[in-house]
Amino acid sequence: MQLTTPLDMHLHLRDGEMLDNIAKCSASTFSGAIIMPNLVPPVRTKEEVVAYKERIMKAIGDERFTPYMTLFFKPSYDKVFLESVRDEITAIKLYPAGITTNSEGGVSGFDVEELRPALEAMSELDIPLCVHGETNGFVMDREAEFVSIYEKLASAFPKLKIIMEHITTKESVEVLDKFENLYATITLHHLLITLDDVAGGMLKPHLFCKPIAKRPEDREALLKIALEAHPKVMFGSDSAPHPKHAKESCGCAAGVFTAPIALQVLAELFENKNASLENLQAFISGNAQKIYALSPLAKTVTLEKKSVTVPSDYNGVVPMYADEKIAYSIKEIKNG
Amino acid sequence: MQLTTPLDMHLHLRDGEMLDNIAKCSASTFSGAIIMPNLVPPVRTKEEVVAYKERIMKAIGDERFTPYMTLFFKPSYDKVFLESVRDEITAIKLYPAGITTNSEGGVSGFDVEELRPALEAMSELDIPLCVHGETNGFVMDREAEFVSIYEKLASAFPKLKIIMEHITTKESVEVLDKFENLYATITLHHLLITLDDVAGGMLKPHLFCKPIAKRPEDREALLKIALEAHPKVMFGSDSAPHPKHAKESCGCAAGVFTAPIALQVLAELFENKNASLENLQAFISGNAQKIYALSPLAKTVTLEKKSVTVPSDYNGVVPMYADEKIAYSIKEIKNG
Repeated sequence: MQLTTPLDMHLHLRDGEMLDNIAKCSASTFSGAIIMPNLVPPVRTKEEVVAYKERIMKAIGDERFTPYMTLFFKPSYDKVFLESVRDEITAIKLYPAGITTNSEGGVSGFDVEELRPALEAMSELDIPLCVHGETNGFVMDREAEFVSIYEKLASAFPKLKIIMEHITTKESVEVLDKFENLYATITLHHLLITLDDVAGGMLKPHLFCKPIAKRPEDREALLKIALEAHPKVMFGSDSAPHPKHAKESCGCAAGVFTAPIALQVLAELFENKNASLENLQAFISGNAQKIYALSPLAKTVTLEKKSVTVPSDYNGVVPMYADEKIAYSIKEIKNG
Repeated sequence: MQLTTPLDMHLHLRDGEMLDNIAKCSASTFSGAIIMPNLVPPVRTKEEVVAYKERIMKAIGDERFTPYMTLFFKPSYDKVFLESVRDEITAIKLYPAGITTNSEGGVSGFDVEELRPALEAMSELDIPLCVHGETNGFVMDREAEFVSIYEKLASAFPKLKIIMEHITTKESVEVLDKFENLYATITLHHLLITLDDVAGGMLKPHLFCKPIAKRPEDREALLKIALEAHPKVMFGSDSAPHPKHAKESCGCAAGVFTAPIALQVLAELFENKNASLENLQAFISGNAQKIYALSPLAKTVTLEKKSVTVPSDYNGVVPMYADEKIAYSIKEIKNG
């Protein structure tokens, strides 16, 4: 099975030692990825985005991989600033304040008039807005509650491309087709697990993420649009490494580390669900290229049906399916 | 504030080293407790229940405390057997198979005719049936789905006292008054937390339990009947110790350890919610004495409003509120 130019449209590469430890897990198999800006402090200036991209390029070494950079949204971004940074970024990521890892400086109200200058400038400059869509309500309701904010933003800024990041609910799936300018990413793990897998048997910290995995009917709704490669839907792993001790502790950090196994497990999932390779190719790359108007570096990943055991950890980061068998492995990666 | 003869109507004391390590956490402050039988192997014979009680008595040393013993329900228990064991037990605990810690040998169907011989014998001998009421459905629905089984059992065996253990949902609260022979225990932690506290911010393994904490409206329903000391409701801590490493690991065991702080935190909760001391006394002892027809050992616990920091652990078991301040502390415990 061959996949060409795989893209991960939502990726956490972190910084410093963690960046150095895990960057190649994505860079070896993907052509490029949208890089999340929620560092400490967040990536908010041209200098910061340029410097972060340089650190990423250093960490990936000789891998052919494009980090599609993003800024951490501030309502005060104006057109002059955005024009100055346009060539360095692919999108801007909006976090509601305090909603996930390193999101303390995010947006705390969604007043359209307050957001108008920044979002209209982004519309004019064709900069997509990636949104972590959760309220601070009850954990199982947060994303569904945020749908009305998506509706408000999508109708107030009809020329703005709004990407609903890592959607997890049927409510998000339902709103996708109601507005031309709404798109979505879906993670690997939200196609596979529900809250049952996180907390239904033993508690599984390595499957704890934000948004939290939801109900079986939510997973079914996500699977449907992913497997049919709905043209407004892209793969975005939200692969989010934390050191093992930060996951297995009395206050476990949110994030599932899927980068090194994402393509293999997607291949298995699409096969098990009788979805076509063509759809997998669209989900993993084609849809994103159209939505973002990208021309990624050519890369061909050949997968073979050969069961392998997933390592216990990658430089101290425990991946999804650690020590478990997965059905596909990567046989060859060719640039070009 | 004085509480007399506090009773914990649902307690896990475990066995071996763990029993020795934590038994006094309950035995020092409570007059007695219903002891869960889900050891490995479960407590299923007269010899086992007698021997387990002896081990408990040894572990509590010179504390004045009654372990109210239970058997692990088997549909094959007949009247001859139950008569032979009647004097050694206070209740029998039914676990659906595989639903929680050490419940593998539980009931896997709820066929009334299959259960009739055992449950009619229990009715005749006035042995209450304590039930862990969860199906094997989606984790947030399991208890609500079990309500129809409670209804079936309560109407098929109208003389059988059925205790809905550690209820967590408004659905369980609603069914309580529909059948004269249904009663319930409520834990401390389910009066305090929702799923938000377990998985809404960081993941908190020490708050992970079965049944899992539910929605805010569920907690409100539980609080209402606890604070008003609804006569069919009793305190049952479900205090369930696990070693720290079994909680902070890649597969965390279910259970919250509340035994050493239960009375203090209940005092604070009832005060904060403007519920009377009389109601707390009924919730912590009076209701249970009437429902189970018990005459517990006299014990008077004097609490004072004096903030203390809860220890990080008790012999390696991390309690609820570890390293946090609670408003009440125990000033004096008097036998008699």
